[in-house]
Amino acid sequence: MKRKMTRTEFEKNLMEIGAHQYHNRHPFHHRMHTGQCSIDEIRAWALNRFCYQRIIPEKDSYVMAKLEGVEDRREWRQRIVDHDGEIDDHPEGGLRRWLALTTQLGFDRDYVMSMNGALPVTRFAANSYLTFVREKTALEAVASSLTELFSPNIISERVQGMLAHYDFITEDSLRYFSYRKSQANRDSNWALDYIDRQAGSRSEQELCLAALKFKCDVLWSMLDAIAGAYQLGGTIPPGSWDPSADADVLRYSA
Amino acid sequence: MKRKMTRTEFEKNLMEIGAHQYHNRHPFHHRMHTGQCSIDEIRAWALNRFCYQRIIPEKDSYVMAKLEGVEDRREWRQRIVDHDGEIDDHPEGGLRRWLALTTQLGFDRDYVMSMNGALPVTRFAANSYLTFVREKTALEAVASSLTELFSPNIISERVQGMLAHYDFITEDSLRYFSYRKSQANRDSNWALDYIDRQAGSRSEQELCLAALKFKCDVLWSMLDAIAGAYQLGGTIPPGSWDPSADADVLRYSA
Repeated sequence: MKRKMTRTEFEKNLMEIGAHQYHNRHPFHHRMHTGQCSIDEIRAWALNRFCYQRIIPEKDSYVMAKLEGVEDRREWRQRIVDHDGEIDDHPEGGLRRWLALTTQLGFDRDYVMSMNGALPVTRFAANSYLTFVREKTALEAVASSLTELFSPNIISERVQGMLAHYDFITEDSLRYFSYRKSQANRDSNWALDYIDRQAGSRSEQELCLAALKFKCDVLWSMLDAIAGAYQLGGTIPPGSWDPSADADVLRYSA
Repeated sequence: MKRKMTRTEFEKNLMEIGAHQYHNRHPFHHRMHTGQCSIDEIRAWALNRFCYQRIIPEKDSYVMAKLEGVEDRREWRQRIVDHDGEIDDHPEGGLRRWLALTTQLGFDRDYVMSMNGALPVTRFAANSYLTFVREKTALEAVASSLTELFSPNIISERVQGMLAHYDFITEDSLRYFSYRKSQANRDSNWALDYIDRQAGSRSEQELCLAALKFKCDVLWSMLDAIAGAYQLGGTIPPGSWDPSADADVLRYSA
């Protein structure tokens, strides 16, 4: 049995996973923020990514149910507020902000929320994340959220790149991201501190590393699927949004 | 509320889903059985498809746990025997037969069984199928197995096409399929009869149709993922089998 890692070693290993496997290294992200995507590729990304956004409050509810300390649950609860918003939408939550983007891209809100047009793989990846959080320990569930350590950079790249290159995107429709940056910083600092406190053995630390890798796989796979279907000439699975056939899904086209 | 479908109408709707959404219509299947795949594409297919094979006895155990009648459980039990085999492998089960194929293609058995080299999406799709069967009713779980109605044809195409076109494939390494054809016929006839008996209302019939569609999505998505990574130039996600970098995983190469 290897010895427990020091906090510094443990965090270095976590950061290394991010450096290699976080989806900021995916060619579709590069393509997106450097202005190489067509409007339909951006649409497909926003439409599919909603499946992931949608499960976040559900996922966070499962995590909260596993946290035993009142203080820990209070901290975690804020994540649900961030995504679901307050009653009457003052302030609105992250889900509504995401829908502002899909609406600007021309999709009907109900169509997006139905997820009928999303790629099955996106739903499978999001559901696998949900199942992971439900079935694993609190420690692993919290560790899987640590992709947020790496998200402030990708968010900056996305927002700056998309505003610079796509005239069909406005700052207002990207407001989801302006909130997420500070939220992700706050949340990932707390989560990192939590797993440092709670991972009492080497094997628990390794479960945390595996949880973070798993979560990187989820995010990476979604970009693979979108690139496959909408950029690289793979199939658009039966029922998924087809830019050439389903123009009537859009309220306006490019 | 629409009226309940007659048995004939219900079965016609099920067959129609298969006609449109079963993965025999996927271009990668066409490519595979007409000899257009490289050996590495066939390897990737066999390696990834193992993730699906592996969950079948687990999935069937969940279904069996939901079946209330002794006779129904007895029928279903045979599926588990078919995949897990008998003690001492006389006869061996479908999982071992699948490993005969991956072994002939050069993969180490432990590597295949670890699923470390599989695409995350394949694991997500297989796990989503498992979660579906665990969480849904017996009726929907049985209905999701009805892709077997369509499998005898795809199996014939695969076996004939692969033997004709790829000299690295032998009849013995395809023995998984020679057993599956008759098993699938037997099983899908029983499952069709079961859902005809058990679906007592229109809405239950529609749940069956949705379950079959879901299952078609699972199979289709796996081919999308394999084609994306190994044929169309998408990414090979970090950690997945990379034919160019991981030659040492193979016991021999083409």
